[in-house]
Formats: sequence, structure tokens, C-alpha cells
Amino acid sequence: MRALVNGYGFLGKRVARSLLLGKLPGVRLVAVARSTGYLYRPEGLRAEELGNDLSGSPHFVEGSALVLLEDGKVDLLVELTPTNLPSGEPALTNIRTALSRGIDVVTANKAPIALAYRELKEVARSTGALLLFEGTVGGGIPLISLRRFCLRGDEVLTIRGILNGTTNYILSRMHFEGLTFDLALREAQNLGIAERDPTLDIEGYDTALKLLILANAVMGLDRKLDDVRITGISRISADAVALAKEANMAVKLIGSVDADGRLSVAPRLVKLNDPICVHGTLNAVTIRLKTAGDLTLIGEGAGEPTVTSILNDIWEVVTVRGFGSA
Amino acid sequence: MRALVNGYGFLGKRVARSLLLGKLPGVRLVAVARSTGYLYRPEGLRAEELGNDLSGSPHFVEGSALVLLEDGKVDLLVELTPTNLPSGEPALTNIRTALSRGIDVVTANKAPIALAYRELKEVARSTGALLLFEGTVGGGIPLISLRRFCLRGDEVLTIRGILNGTTNYILSRMHFEGLTFDLALREAQNLGIAERDPTLDIEGYDTALKLLILANAVMGLDRKLDDVRITGISRISADAVALAKEANMAVKLIGSVDADGRLSVAPRLVKLNDPICVHGTLNAVTIRLKTAGDLTLIGEGAGEPTVTSILNDIWEVVTVRGFGSA
Repeated sequence: MRALVNGYGFLGKRVARSLLLGKLPGVRLVAVARSTGYLYRPEGLRAEELGNDLSGSPHFVEGSALVLLEDGKVDLLVELTPTNLPSGEPALTNIRTALSRGIDVVTANKAPIALAYRELKEVARSTGALLLFEGTVGGGIPLISLRRFCLRGDEVLTIRGILNGTTNYILSRMHFEGLTFDLALREAQNLGIAERDPTLDIEGYDTALKLLILANAVMGLDRKLDDVRITGISRISADAVALAKEANMAVKLIGSVDADGRLSVAPRLVKLNDPICVHGTLNAVTIRLKTAGDLTLIGEGAGEPTVTSILNDIWEVVTVRGFGSA
Repeated sequence: MRALVNGYGFLGKRVARSLLLGKLPGVRLVAVARSTGYLYRPEGLRAEELGNDLSGSPHFVEGSALVLLEDGKVDLLVELTPTNLPSGEPALTNIRTALSRGIDVVTANKAPIALAYRELKEVARSTGALLLFEGTVGGGIPLISLRRFCLRGDEVLTIRGILNGTTNYILSRMHFEGLTFDLALREAQNLGIAERDPTLDIEGYDTALKLLILANAVMGLDRKLDDVRITGISRISADAVALAKEANMAVKLIGSVDADGRLSVAPRLVKLNDPICVHGTLNAVTIRLKTAGDLTLIGEGAGEPTVTSILNDIWEVVTVRGFGSA
């Protein structure tokens, strides 16, 4: 199976290296791409070609890797470009192009799945291609494959959780150290936990995208971003957090799909002994099942753990394709 | 696929009913058995034949259902008899008989898997039969299929958790209400949470069996019950629990497999904000993964939720067999 890893940031580098190390039998890494160009070698790339910056290689080709999809040079697209709103591009076009040609797709980019899940699923169905996206939600917490492989025969009634590590870090610092929102945000930015423009995280949009993916993929709903009521955490005062603490609660940014299928993202009071009341950059999600009751998963919501989710998805492609054309 | 449900207690009744309701396409329930006899109808049992007590039916046959396995009358054994130590019988013989004839097995009985996993796996491999046992550990928490389907490509380094709801209930009552061990145990017995002879739970053997199953099936070790250092909770004093509480900790019965593959079950001090510090009858397990870091799962460890684990295993059999001979 010939793989293209598109996107050469934190995740792209790690996934490419894992594939080169032969961690996934049956997968040959033939191309790695970034926004300005790509490396392509039909017989498989070599570790020494993949430096910190692809464009340093003498074999670096300028231009879009879309041509590799259009020309059928790969069997698997691993799309790891960053989330881009509102367009979802270039990932959306890459994924659509791949699926329409029967090329399997594994992605950790939230935007295309949140914005166009139903359309992409339909394209995938029409060509028989696979579309897997565990890495889009909850980092190393495998919510989507858990639903697919471990809870068959049960029904998901509601979902409720902390899906964004940055806001959870800020709220945790406010809770434990009494910091103001502004101070906690600045600290998170200094540590590289929050971005310089933190809007997507602190205003709740990142949580909303993930919640949307869970609602559609895990609960089988058909919701759009406009259906999510979104309130961020930028107006949470130190006083509000302190009052909650006195009452053995914490303020957390909670994404939830209720029993009537309504989606919301908002700061909520959560009891300190509620299983989802985790701190720091952790994520936590409670899935309420008709028979199994409440099942809670807690783990790191971003970074290195996401590699496990991506590799597991690639493993699934290899399994379904029967270790095919490697 | 012709199924025999063996064991007609809480789980057996619920699983049989789910199969009769057609919750799992491709499965025909042809037999249900209890210790004194069984009902068998090749064309499939009917809901009205399954009362509260099988032996009330005019078609009830006295004797062991083993004959149905020996005569190849079924394709799937769902073994739901209670755990029996030290022999593991009659489940061990039933499962061995089934696997040796190529009959797939789904079980929630801990003893055969804890006592003879390697042998049974070998038999299963030799005939190509499936052996699935999600229901043996953690009730509705799907630890085994999680490892198998959601974390491929990562490595499990350690396992640590609360695997027994009865002892967790007792310790939680001691923690929150200041009860003595004896009082908390009596309360749990009155509520049906603890058995009249609570030895298996409170002396840590139930936790040890489950830990052993996780060590062997999730971490690929080859451990025996003798390899587990076991200390129960019967000598935990109210004072010890109170002292822990003052230090923002709780005493919990923790089963753990450490990085050197050593297994232990013992009361431990756990910080109140540790994700596995759950209360009441909840179970919680943290799996430490090489890449994904700590992943914690929390859920009900027994009762109704176990049905989901059993049905998911049956679903897996149906999937692998391609909805075969239904």
C-alpha cells in the first residue's frame, strides 16, 4: 500500500517516521508533502531524505501534491494539514479528490470532517474508499473506533466532555492558583499550550468542531456547525471560579450532545468528583449508553498521543485491504 | 449462526433475550442451558419458552448441554456460568470442548480465562475457533477490544486500576461516611452488592483474576495466579481511611501490572484527583501507553453493562464469520 503523508508539522513528521520505521507492515511511504511542495519516490522514501524541512532535499518538487492523487500514484492519503476555517482547505479538496478516486483517507484535520462529513462519506461509499478520522477528536482517546468496534449492539444516548486541552489548562490554573483569565491565557501562550491567536480555542470553536464530529460519527446525527450553541470562556472571572471551588465544583468548558440531539458548548459547573472533572491539558468524555451506562474516557487531547490514533486508523486500512499492494 | 447460551442467571437471561429480539442479525438462539438441563430447538427458540426458570418448559431436557457441543449442534457457545475456583468448572470443560471442535466461544466467566488462557488460546488457534472474553473484566468497560482494535501500533507499558465494584463500594462508604469495614461490608451485603461469602471480593481474588486476564490478554504476558501478590481490604481500619482523607487521598484496592511485568493487588493510597479515584461501585483502569500516554476508562464494573461487552463479542464473531450459517 503506497502512502502519501500530507502536512509536515508535528504530526506529519512523527507519522512519516513511524511508517519509515516499518511500524505498520504493508505500508510503503512513497510521498511526503507540505504546502510548498513534496518528495515522491515510487519505490519508497528513505529516512535520510526526511530532514526537518523537506525543501532541503535535492528531490523536492515545488507545487501541490494533489497531482499525486489525481494521477493515482498513491493508495492512501494521510492528511495532516492544520485545521483551517471556514473553508477547510486545502484538506477538503485533497480528501474529496482522494475519495472520489477510491483512495483511502486517514486524517487528523477537523475542518473537512466537521464541515462536510455527510458529503465525504457519500463519496467514500460510492467508490468503496475508507474515510477514517480518529485523530480529529480527543488526541489519543479513541472515541470513534471505540464506538465502532467495542460497543456494537448498544446505543449512544448522550455525549458530554472536555474536548479542548488549552481551555482546560487555563481554567485549571484559574481554579488551583486563583489566576485571572488574562494571566492564565498569557501563561499558556508562553508555554506554547495556547496559540498567539487563541480565538478558536477560547471562544469554543475547536470544541464545537470536535463535538460536531462526535455527534455525526458516533451518534449518527446530521448536524452542522450552525446547530451548535457556542459560548467561550473569555468572560469567566476569577471570582466565578473561586465561588465554584468553594462549592466543591470547577468551571469547565463542556461540549455536550443531549438526549434530544441538541449540541452546545459552554462553561459549566462540574462537581470535583465527576469523572470528567480532569485538570491541566487532559481531555475527558462521558458517553452515556443505553445498556452499558456511563463510560468515561480520559487522556491527553493533543500532541504525541494523536499519533496512536492516526496509526491505528492506518492499521485498520491495512487490515481491510488485506495487506494488499505493498 | 446457531448459538447456545450456557448459564441462565442475570447475564444469561439478558443475553438470551437480546438474541431472541434479533439484536444481532445472523445469530439464531437454538439452545439455552443451566446446570440441571437445557432447552434445544434447531429451528430457534421462541421467547415464550424462556421463562424465569427453564425447567418449567415441557421441552426441558435434564442433563448437561455438553452433548450439544460434542454433537456439533451449535456454532457458538456463549458461556455465562458463574466463576468457580479453583477448578474453573464446568466452564473450562465446556469452553475446551467447544474450541477443540472449532466452535467459537464468547464468555464472561473469569475462571477459565484466568486459569488456562494460554492452553485455550492454543486450542483455539489449532482449530481456527474464536475465543472472546470482554465480559470477564470491567463489566461494560471494553478494555480487551479497545487494545485489539483502537490502540494498534502502540505498546502497553503498565496497567493500574480498580477492578472490583464491591470492595470499592465498601471503601467509598468508609471514606465518605466514616463507617468501619465490618459495618460497610454488612451494608453492602444487605444491598446485594456483596455476597454472603464475600471472600473472593474482599480478599482480592476477584481483582487478581481480572488483572491476570488483562496482563495476559492486553499485555501479552504469560502469568499464573501464583504470580500475583494479593492483599485484601479486610484489615483496613476506619482510622487509616480517615487519615488518608485528611491528606486528600483515598484508600483503594488497586490491581497493577508494573513496567517489569509484576502483578500485585493491594490497598493503596490514591490521590483524590487521580482519574482512577472513582467511588461507589465504579471501576476505573489506567493503561499507560508508550506513545499515547495514560488512557483512563471509567464505568460500571458489573451487572447490566456487561451485556454490552458480551453482545459486542458476539457481534465480532458474526463479523468474522461473515454472517455465515444463520
